Amino acid sequence: MSNSIPYKIYLHEHEMPTQWYNVRADMKNKPAPLLNPGTRKPMTVEELSGVFCTELAKQELDESTPYIDIPEEILKFYKMYRPSPLVRAYCLEEKLKTPAKIYYKFEGNNTSGSHKLNSAIAQAYYAKQQGLKGVTTETGAGQWGTALSMACSYFDLDCKVYMVKVSYEQKPFRREVMRTYGASVTPSPSETTEVGRRILAEHPGTTGSLGCAISEAVEAAVGTDGYRYVLGSVLNQVLLHQSIIGLETKAALDKYHITPDIIIGCAGGGSNLGGLIAPFMGEKLRGEQDYQFIAVEPASCPSFTRGRFAYDFCDTGKVCPLAKMYTLGSGFIPSANHAGGLRYHGMSTVLSQLYHDGLMEARAVEQTAVFDAAEQFARIEGILPAPESSHAIRVAIDEALKCRETGEEKTIVFGLTGTGYFDMVAYEKYHNGEMSDYIPSDEDLQPGFDSLPGVDK
Amino acid sequence: MSNSIPYKIYLHEHEMPTQWYNVRADMKNKPAPLLNPGTRKPMTVEELSGVFCTELAKQELDESTPYIDIPEEILKFYKMYRPSPLVRAYCLEEKLKTPAKIYYKFEGNNTSGSHKLNSAIAQAYYAKQQGLKGVTTETGAGQWGTALSMACSYFDLDCKVYMVKVSYEQKPFRREVMRTYGASVTPSPSETTEVGRRILAEHPGTTGSLGCAISEAVEAAVGTDGYRYVLGSVLNQVLLHQSIIGLETKAALDKYHITPDIIIGCAGGGSNLGGLIAPFMGEKLRGEQDYQFIAVEPASCPSFTRGRFAYDFCDTGKVCPLAKMYTLGSGFIPSANHAGGLRYHGMSTVLSQLYHDGLMEARAVEQTAVFDAAEQFARIEGILPAPESSHAIRVAIDEALKCRETGEEKTIVFGLTGTGYFDMVAYEKYHNGEMSDYIPSDEDLQPGFDSLPGVDK
Repeated sequence: MSNSIPYKIYLHEHEMPTQWYNVRADMKNKPAPLLNPGTRKPMTVEELSGVFCTELAKQELDESTPYIDIPEEILKFYKMYRPSPLVRAYCLEEKLKTPAKIYYKFEGNNTSGSHKLNSAIAQAYYAKQQGLKGVTTETGAGQWGTALSMACSYFDLDCKVYMVKVSYEQKPFRREVMRTYGASVTPSPSETTEVGRRILAEHPGTTGSLGCAISEAVEAAVGTDGYRYVLGSVLNQVLLHQSIIGLETKAALDKYHITPDIIIGCAGGGSNLGGLIAPFMGEKLRGEQDYQFIAVEPASCPSFTRGRFAYDFCDTGKVCPLAKMYTLGSGFIPSANHAGGLRYHGMSTVLSQLYHDGLMEARAVEQTAVFDAAEQFARIEGILPAPESSHAIRVAIDEALKCRETGEEKTIVFGLTGTGYFDMVAYEKYHNGEMSDYIPSDEDLQPGFDSLPGVDK
Repeated sequence: MSNSIPYKIYLHEHEMPTQWYNVRADMKNKPAPLLNPGTRKPMTVEELSGVFCTELAKQELDESTPYIDIPEEILKFYKMYRPSPLVRAYCLEEKLKTPAKIYYKFEGNNTSGSHKLNSAIAQAYYAKQQGLKGVTTETGAGQWGTALSMACSYFDLDCKVYMVKVSYEQKPFRREVMRTYGASVTPSPSETTEVGRRILAEHPGTTGSLGCAISEAVEAAVGTDGYRYVLGSVLNQVLLHQSIIGLETKAALDKYHITPDIIIGCAGGGSNLGGLIAPFMGEKLRGEQDYQFIAVEPASCPSFTRGRFAYDFCDTGKVCPLAKMYTLGSGFIPSANHAGGLRYHGMSTVLSQLYHDGLMEARAVEQTAVFDAAEQFARIEGILPAPESSHAIRVAIDEALKCRETGEEKTIVFGLTGTGYFDMVAYEKYHNGEMSDYIPSDEDLQPGFDSLPGVDK
C-alpha cells in the first residue's frame, strides 16, 4: 500500500473543494459572542459592518450554516496557486527510522509565502463586491501584508498596510514585495493617524507594536469613505476561509483511503490550525471519527497552555470587540520571538472553545528546539520552513520519535504553513548560537487583566 | 478544448521522465570540442577527471548517447520537488487581451528558488558515488550555491562555496540559507587560496568577481584530496541534467495534445534554455516538427546578439578549458545588471552551435523593460519572478501582444526559472526609478580577444 502513495498528492482541479466548511455549525457549545467594548452586549452585523465588509460581518456571526459556497472569482484565483500539495515525508521518516507515516500540507508555494493568501483573496473579493475603494490592515512579520497586497492587486483595490516600525526597518524586502503589488506601506506608529500621532508624542522613540498598528489601520478605515479594515487571523471568517486547507487535505487523504491519527498545527491567532483541522473536527464533533489534534505554540507566548479562558480585548489599544478566548491579557507584550506570526496574546474563539471542551490538546515549545527541527527538516525534506511552521514540525518529529520507541505505525499530518526566505536573520542567530529561549514568569502574564467590568470572566 | 486545460498541469509520478535527453546525439554539426588551455588539443576524459567527477567527465564528452538513465537516487530526490507545474497563464492572457495561449514551466517551487537544483543533485550524486568527501564551487547571485548546498546536505557531502565578496556582503540571507544546509561559505577573493592571496595583494580593496571565485574554487578542489569542482551552467553535462525541464514540459503538453509554436527562455550560460528546449530541438533536428526558439539575454551582456562565435576561455582567470562559443571575450566585465545569473561572457557550446546553424533566435532586452514585465506578471499571475526569469517573461508578453495585433492564436511556452525573493534590492531600485539600462559600446566588448594563439577563431 505504502508504495502506491506518491511523494506529493495533488488534487485535480475538478476535485478541489467548492465550498468552505464552517465548523461552528457542528459545535454543540458555540463560541461565546463578540461583545461591543462600549455596551458589553453581543455585536450585531450592523455594528460590525462599520469596520468590516457586510458579507464578512455576516460570515463572522454565522454559527449555523455548515457549508458556504466559494464565489467563482475566488475559485479562479485559488486555481492559480492551489491545490497545495499534501506531501508524504518519506525521506524524513527514513532518517528518523520511525514506523510512523508523516504527511504535511504545504502552503508555502505562493509568493506571499504562506496560507494567508487563502483568506486575503476572499476578503478582497467581498470588498470589491461591496464597491469599496480599498482596505486597510496591519502587518508585523509581513506575511499577511504581502498576501493582502497580492489579493488587492488582483482586484484593483487600494491597499494601505501599517507595518510595525521595527519590522519596516528590519525587513525592507518584505516591504518591497508589498510595493511590487502596489500597496502603500506606512511604518507604524505614523503621523497619518490621530492614534499614531498621540503614541509618537507620548513615546517619541518607539519602534511600534502590532497593537498600535491595528489601532492605526482601524482608524484609517473607519475614517475614510469607501474603506474597510481587514484582519488575517483570529476571526471566525478567517477560519472559515482557511478551511480550504483542511478540506483539500481530507480530500487527498480520502483518495488514498488514509485516516490520520494525529493532526498538528502551529497556533498564533489560530488561522492555520483552525483551517487545517476544520473538517476532521467536524467528524469528531458529529461522532463519526476520532482524531488527536495538537496545537503548538511558542513557550514565550503560551496562550493555550498558560492563558486564561475569559473575555478580553482583541487588541492592545482596546478599541476592538471583546472575545472570550484563551488569553495572556491584552496588555501582554510577547518577547522578541522570531516566529512573529505567533506573537499574539489571544486565540480564535472557536479554537478556544474546542480546547476548553477537551476536543484538542496544546503544547508549548521553546525556540531553539523549534529551529533544531527547522534545520533538520530543511536538510532532509529540502524545504526551508518559516519559524512559525517549524513549531508544528517540532511536535511532528517528537511524535514520530515516540512511535519509534513504541513501534506504533501512527499516521501524522501536520500543517507546513509557509517558507522562511524572509526569516534569515533568525536562522543566522540560530547558526551563531545567539538564540534565546525566553519563557515568561507568571508575573509577566496577564497584566491588568482584572479591569473588564461588566463581563463574566 | 481550452476549457478542459487546467490552470496547472502536473504530471503523475509515474509519468515523470526516467532518462535525461542528450540533444548532441541528434545534432549533425556537433559542438566543437573543449580544448586543453596548455596544449590546445581536445580535452580527454582523463584530463577532465582531475577537475570533475569521472562520470560527469564522461557525460561532458558524450556526443552520441541520446538517452541516459537517471539514477534511482536522483529520481527519488526529484520526486520531493518535481514534477514542476506547467502553468496555463489564463489571467495574463485575459489582461493582455491576446488570442495567444501562454504556458510557463515554473521551476521556482523549491527552496533553492530555481532550476539549478536539477543539476546540483545529479552532480552531488556522482561525487558521492565516486567516494568523494566533498565538492567546491563558486556562486554569484547565490542560486547555484544554494542548490548545491541542498544537494550536498542530502548526500552528506562537504560543500565549499566561494561567494563573490560583494554578493556575500550584500546578500547575507543567501549566505544563511547555504549555512542552513551545512555549506561553508567563503567570501572571494579570500586568503584560503594562492590565487585569492595574489589577487588580494594586487587589488587590496577588490569586491571580487565570478572569474576570481571560479579560480579559487578550482584551486581548492584540485589541491585537496577527495574533492572535485562543480559548475552550475555552460557545461554539456549541466544541459543534459536540465533536460528534465523540457522533457516534463513536453510530456505535459502531449497529454493535452498541445503543440507549441514558440518556446522562450532566458540565457546566461544556457542551463535553463538548453534544458527547456532540448526535446523540442531534438524533434526539429530530426525533421519531425518545427518550432521557433527564442533565447533572451540582457542588453548589457549580449553574448548571442553581439558576441563572436570563436574559441575563448570559460573563465576570467584563464585556467579553464577553451570552448568554441558565442562570447564577448573572457576579459569582458558585464555591468552591474541585477540579473546576476545572466552576467556571463560566454554561452553553452551546444546552444552556440545551434544558434550558429540558424536553429534558434536570440533577443537582447533592456533591464527596465524586463522589470516592467516582472511587476506586471507578479500582479497578474501572483508569482514574484527572478530578474533572470523575467527576461523570458518580457519576450513572451511581446510575442503575445504581437498576436493581439495579428489575431494569431499562437501557443507560447516560456521557462519561469525561479523566484525573486532574494532580489528585492533590484525591485526597490526599480520602484524608486533608480534603475539604469546600460548598454556596452562596441569598444567595451571583446577586450583582449585576439590573444588565443594556436586556435582557430
